[in-house]
Amino acid sequence: MSALLGLPERTWIDGVETAQVSLLDRGLQYGDGLFETMAAPGAGVRFLSLHLKRLAQGCERLGIAVPDLRLLRREIATAAGGGRAIVKLIVTRGQARARGYAVSGDEEPTRILLRYPWKGEDTGAMREGVRVRIADLKLAENPALAGIKHLNRLEQILARLEWDDAGIAEALLFSHSGALTSGTMSNVFLVRDGRLLTPRLDRCGVAGVMREVVGTLAAGAGVDLERCALDLEDLNRAEEIFLTSALTGIRPVVELAGRRIAIGAATRRLQAALAPQLAHAEGTDS
Amino acid sequence: MSALLGLPERTWIDGVETAQVSLLDRGLQYGDGLFETMAAPGAGVRFLSLHLKRLAQGCERLGIAVPDLRLLRREIATAAGGGRAIVKLIVTRGQARARGYAVSGDEEPTRILLRYPWKGEDTGAMREGVRVRIADLKLAENPALAGIKHLNRLEQILARLEWDDAGIAEALLFSHSGALTSGTMSNVFLVRDGRLLTPRLDRCGVAGVMREVVGTLAAGAGVDLERCALDLEDLNRAEEIFLTSALTGIRPVVELAGRRIAIGAATRRLQAALAPQLAHAEGTDS
Repeated sequence: MSALLGLPERTWIDGVETAQVSLLDRGLQYGDGLFETMAAPGAGVRFLSLHLKRLAQGCERLGIAVPDLRLLRREIATAAGGGRAIVKLIVTRGQARARGYAVSGDEEPTRILLRYPWKGEDTGAMREGVRVRIADLKLAENPALAGIKHLNRLEQILARLEWDDAGIAEALLFSHSGALTSGTMSNVFLVRDGRLLTPRLDRCGVAGVMREVVGTLAAGAGVDLERCALDLEDLNRAEEIFLTSALTGIRPVVELAGRRIAIGAATRRLQAALAPQLAHAEGTDS
Repeated sequence: MSALLGLPERTWIDGVETAQVSLLDRGLQYGDGLFETMAAPGAGVRFLSLHLKRLAQGCERLGIAVPDLRLLRREIATAAGGGRAIVKLIVTRGQARARGYAVSGDEEPTRILLRYPWKGEDTGAMREGVRVRIADLKLAENPALAGIKHLNRLEQILARLEWDDAGIAEALLFSHSGALTSGTMSNVFLVRDGRLLTPRLDRCGVAGVMREVVGTLAAGAGVDLERCALDLEDLNRAEEIFLTSALTGIRPVVELAGRRIAIGAATRRLQAALAPQLAHAEGTDS
């Protein structure tokens, strides 16, 4: 029964409720598309504008036509229903017009929406923190794909296959050149000497919505956020470490590869600043 | 009408004729799967054993259960029908049991087959050669994925988006560290000082079936094939260059980024040795 909790309650393509997609969709054939995973805590979707902004930027970088964003907002609202849901949006380049990688240029993007049940915030993880490992897998570096939340996710899958201890919440990943990058499904922040640091993500990684929100919060609190090149040494010297994601907010790291880490004041201040925003949902008609 | 020529005639999932796949399939959600594109020149499928061997190796490396290969042969035979077809096989990890990258371990791989019409060999390209460009996009390097014909193909799509001159047949790609790797959909061989060279593919690229066939042919002809690190300088100094793929056999490169290249004796000898094999199809009951 517990497995069923992980399945979507309802799914749609291009506004029509359905459970299936064409075999010719380039999302299936090549991972040729993008996705967003959004929290709907009440009436509306949290950080919806930021999610749609990232989606549109990703489409532009991949040469995928940006879907009508007003239409997308309406479809997302339908998917969110009354809220207390996780809404996953997948946008692909559309159906292949022919075999092969070439794009015909007249593909129409496919809009896929999935509504999953949501129990609300994981307040335990936010309060008590999480245990994290360091992945063996190294991320490949490609500026052409860096930052985009695209559908080519085999690296994250391989990194996630490395552990099955339910007590480990996440793995931190380094790139092939040794740059600290992110978790498998979250971004990472370090605090050292009163400075807030996060990887630059110019060669790999996903430009997270919560990463952007935390950057704005930090600026509002007069804290300098440095988006910079970080390595294992930086990670080891961090006084505080926390993870961010749109669904899980800010989770302090209390154990990294066996090393205990205290939850610090900066992490707690940012959590406090974030709290009201976690409860806030954007209307989808804006 | 010409666009219709690019569409499959018939499609199947797990042996059942259908045009659609579940939205939950991890092939769509994450590009979590592999594919093979095979020629069926007559009764049976060319190089079928090599295709299935590569597929099984790819599954093992990604931790995907290897499908029953006897069953797969029967389904491929059905898809090939009487032949004169291109058969594309996609194997994904199966339907997601929950949201997120984690693998539950009880996924059942999805077997997708698509039958496309095929006009037969492109004898013009084999005889007269093809014009090739050099891609601006550099391939990311990840030994964990190198060699596997997986569904994460955004790099190939971006490289293919760089040109729309129908007179250019392919683009050659270098990796971020400067290693000559492959075309977007073919492998590359160089001839210099009587030696046959092809990239090693230990950090990126796809271990092509035709690349392996050519290696066997070369050994039979007493030619040493060196699988090694190659760079732009090696490409520029090559006396002969040719491309290989399961569908197109050996295509001489007669123009590379504007430079004219003669079709040499080694290329012609390998083409002659390959010719009988191109006409041969394996029975699918072996």
